Amino acid sequence: MSHRDSRHNHGKTDLPHFFEPQSIAVIGSFRQGFFGGYVVIKSLLNAGYTGQIYPINPAYKKIFSLKVYPSIREIPEKIDLAIIMIRAQAVPSVIEDCGDKDVRAVIVVSDGFAERNQEGSRLQDEIVNIARQRGIRIIGPNTAGIVNTSNGLNPCPYEAGYYKLRKGPIAICSQTGMINPQAFPYPYLHIGISKICDFGNKCDLNECDMLEYLERDPATKVISMHLESITDGRRLLQISRRVTSQKPVLILKSGKTQEGARASASHTGSIAMDDRLFEAICKQAGILRLEEFDELFEIPRMFASQPLPKGNRLGVISYTGAIAVLAADEGARYGLTGARLTPKTAGMLDDIFPELGKVPVDIGPMSVVVKDLPALYPQIVSAVISDENVDALLNVLWADPNGYVVPMYLEAYRELKTGYPKPVATWIYGPNTRTVADLAESLEGLGFPVFTDLKTSIKALGLAYTYAQIKEDKTP
Amino acid sequence: MSHRDSRHNHGKTDLPHFFEPQSIAVIGSFRQGFFGGYVVIKSLLNAGYTGQIYPINPAYKKIFSLKVYPSIREIPEKIDLAIIMIRAQAVPSVIEDCGDKDVRAVIVVSDGFAERNQEGSRLQDEIVNIARQRGIRIIGPNTAGIVNTSNGLNPCPYEAGYYKLRKGPIAICSQTGMINPQAFPYPYLHIGISKICDFGNKCDLNECDMLEYLERDPATKVISMHLESITDGRRLLQISRRVTSQKPVLILKSGKTQEGARASASHTGSIAMDDRLFEAICKQAGILRLEEFDELFEIPRMFASQPLPKGNRLGVISYTGAIAVLAADEGARYGLTGARLTPKTAGMLDDIFPELGKVPVDIGPMSVVVKDLPALYPQIVSAVISDENVDALLNVLWADPNGYVVPMYLEAYRELKTGYPKPVATWIYGPNTRTVADLAESLEGLGFPVFTDLKTSIKALGLAYTYAQIKEDKTP
Repeated sequence: MSHRDSRHNHGKTDLPHFFEPQSIAVIGSFRQGFFGGYVVIKSLLNAGYTGQIYPINPAYKKIFSLKVYPSIREIPEKIDLAIIMIRAQAVPSVIEDCGDKDVRAVIVVSDGFAERNQEGSRLQDEIVNIARQRGIRIIGPNTAGIVNTSNGLNPCPYEAGYYKLRKGPIAICSQTGMINPQAFPYPYLHIGISKICDFGNKCDLNECDMLEYLERDPATKVISMHLESITDGRRLLQISRRVTSQKPVLILKSGKTQEGARASASHTGSIAMDDRLFEAICKQAGILRLEEFDELFEIPRMFASQPLPKGNRLGVISYTGAIAVLAADEGARYGLTGARLTPKTAGMLDDIFPELGKVPVDIGPMSVVVKDLPALYPQIVSAVISDENVDALLNVLWADPNGYVVPMYLEAYRELKTGYPKPVATWIYGPNTRTVADLAESLEGLGFPVFTDLKTSIKALGLAYTYAQIKEDKTP
Repeated sequence: MSHRDSRHNHGKTDLPHFFEPQSIAVIGSFRQGFFGGYVVIKSLLNAGYTGQIYPINPAYKKIFSLKVYPSIREIPEKIDLAIIMIRAQAVPSVIEDCGDKDVRAVIVVSDGFAERNQEGSRLQDEIVNIARQRGIRIIGPNTAGIVNTSNGLNPCPYEAGYYKLRKGPIAICSQTGMINPQAFPYPYLHIGISKICDFGNKCDLNECDMLEYLERDPATKVISMHLESITDGRRLLQISRRVTSQKPVLILKSGKTQEGARASASHTGSIAMDDRLFEAICKQAGILRLEEFDELFEIPRMFASQPLPKGNRLGVISYTGAIAVLAADEGARYGLTGARLTPKTAGMLDDIFPELGKVPVDIGPMSVVVKDLPALYPQIVSAVISDENVDALLNVLWADPNGYVVPMYLEAYRELKTGYPKPVATWIYGPNTRTVADLAESLEGLGFPVFTDLKTSIKALGLAYTYAQIKEDKTP
């Protein structure tokens, strides 16, 4: 059996060449600018990649103190990964060179393939054929590439202004470079990344290969994907059914509508799957569906740091009952229901302030009357989270313009951190965006996800509950 | 006919006492802090209110150089509006005093009424009865009050850290103080406000009264409302049918689900309307429905500055086709369809770069190749917006980390500003949140709404198209 016969084996054997290469050939222009081989090498060096880097270009001698080779064939050492950024027409022959050099993994950043026109489609078929013959796997073409935070592998081909991403358990994959460092402000947001992969036109390596790799990746605890097309529904079902028993898989599927499918066909040249079929796959496989692009980044943060809820009873602490109504509407979509506090907790809270002991725990009225709110607030939060009738907590914080309330919140969250095995979603609002952002930063630093809007906070808890049920169903 | 016989007349006659008072009595504590009468007066003075302010409290002599009166009865002048922030039990007798003083408008900030418990419900009934007998209208109780940017009327009872709001055509109303200055960072976001009103428990003045007032308010061009309950469906239908023929009315209705309705009952003591009935009212009246709390602030910005589209053909300019797919999915919900450029425009764009002349106009591929993008980009934008097959434009901008691209965008938007009678929605993304925010600020300064996420950008255009159809249907 040739090593190309079983697609399944490729996922297992080839993906490390992409994400854990000992040596990388960078094939492109080294003109200084905001795109190209120059930026790839700058990104790799600044991100702390310690493997070998081999720039390839007959017109250069040296770049970043690295010797530039005229061709990949001239490199004396073994090459694990080649990154190609040359005009589309020249890509096939360079992939032939890669084959001669026994390179097993190639990222084709270049565009002008199936997404462009018929000539591009032909070129794409050509590189796929060469790769199949030579035992090469391809990510792309038309991709912004990949990231692995475990080894400083950030060969971003666009200037992002930063190079190191926060390490963490979230893997994000997409059919667009909108998830790559040049597009998304990772360092500004508390999102810990394990791997990033833009499949681009997805001519070879696809979501199933990646799921198989991430299934066994110890750095990855949650997988968030944007897909326009599904390469192989049967395989996706088979693999993700297995992966979701260990790690949550979140998928945003675009091209749901006819209009969207039409737009998708002209984007990556791919044909969208009927949405009802995809929905059926998700149901059977235990995939969690996302609905908005921002959720790709927001929702996995819940799974990255918080335990799964053991039930659907949502505790809410806020400064207004209106929040609880909005939360109840959104939560109902996921089967969440407002918790009813035990008589013990309710009585303790009612003793603090009349009618405090119900959900939502509305601290608005007391906040303008009592003088010792800073001492009482952490007690209130602890009482609610430890109530046996509460499975998860939505905590809504108002940040005053001067940040006087910040220490009170920090104390409550330090207490939360000491260990209540229940998920907490936090949303902060207030009249000063700076105070709100600083408080969010502090709470994230303590390990609690702060979401950008109310709806997403609740959806994150709702999907955590959905996933808890999926896992339970799968446990023999 | 007593002046209380017709509710409709009250909207017409009483609302100016609230929003255009010549004199205000502030009844509450003047202890320095972040809540209460002290803050109300500070807010009014700093916001530039030039009418008379009369603090009322027997325990004080002077506050902010203003004479403090022991009772409203002692004030020698006429009082248009009284703002009450005392404990609930004392409110009825103060409203009696207001009646004696011929005050027609009272805002009851105090809580502890129907939202608290049975005793509170009784108290609320009591103040309603007194008000009815005395010809007084009430906003609240349990409200954060109102704002009128035309006359510096910002009696915010909570310290917001700022006092002046940007003037503009958007009126925002709600059954929660989450829309008031202490909760929302108005000065940080480009949102021009005419009026704000938190109905609170809505014991008297309600959404219909406000709609009638805003219908005739020349400062208001678009009305955005959050409602938990509908006081009078028939009247809402009747009034909003009329208002929507002149101004768009956007409503976020919470308490849609059973869970939400239950939570609502305990929030403001109000009973939620069956959502199908509300949906029918919206359809008949031409009300645009919102779905998320953030949309209350985001969506009206489209109507505040942009013309209505004359058709459903959406032009899209972006750096990736993936955007267009997501846009097509969301746009399809509102009947938007991808524009097909005229052969003339398509040819002109194809001459600039191969395959550029289709929607989405994907400038991604050319942006990494051509050297004169800054000169070409404004031409591309002008060509698309002026194409007769394009009714509206979604423009997605990538901001590089250093802001090198900013001048190019500014030039294009200055050109747009010279007058294309088509709406433009802008979304900006990039690796540096500061650069993105600065560019957004500049474009907002030129009069173009920049939305916080992709979905909202498209929804804003979709609702603009929906409203254009509503208006067309209403034009005889």
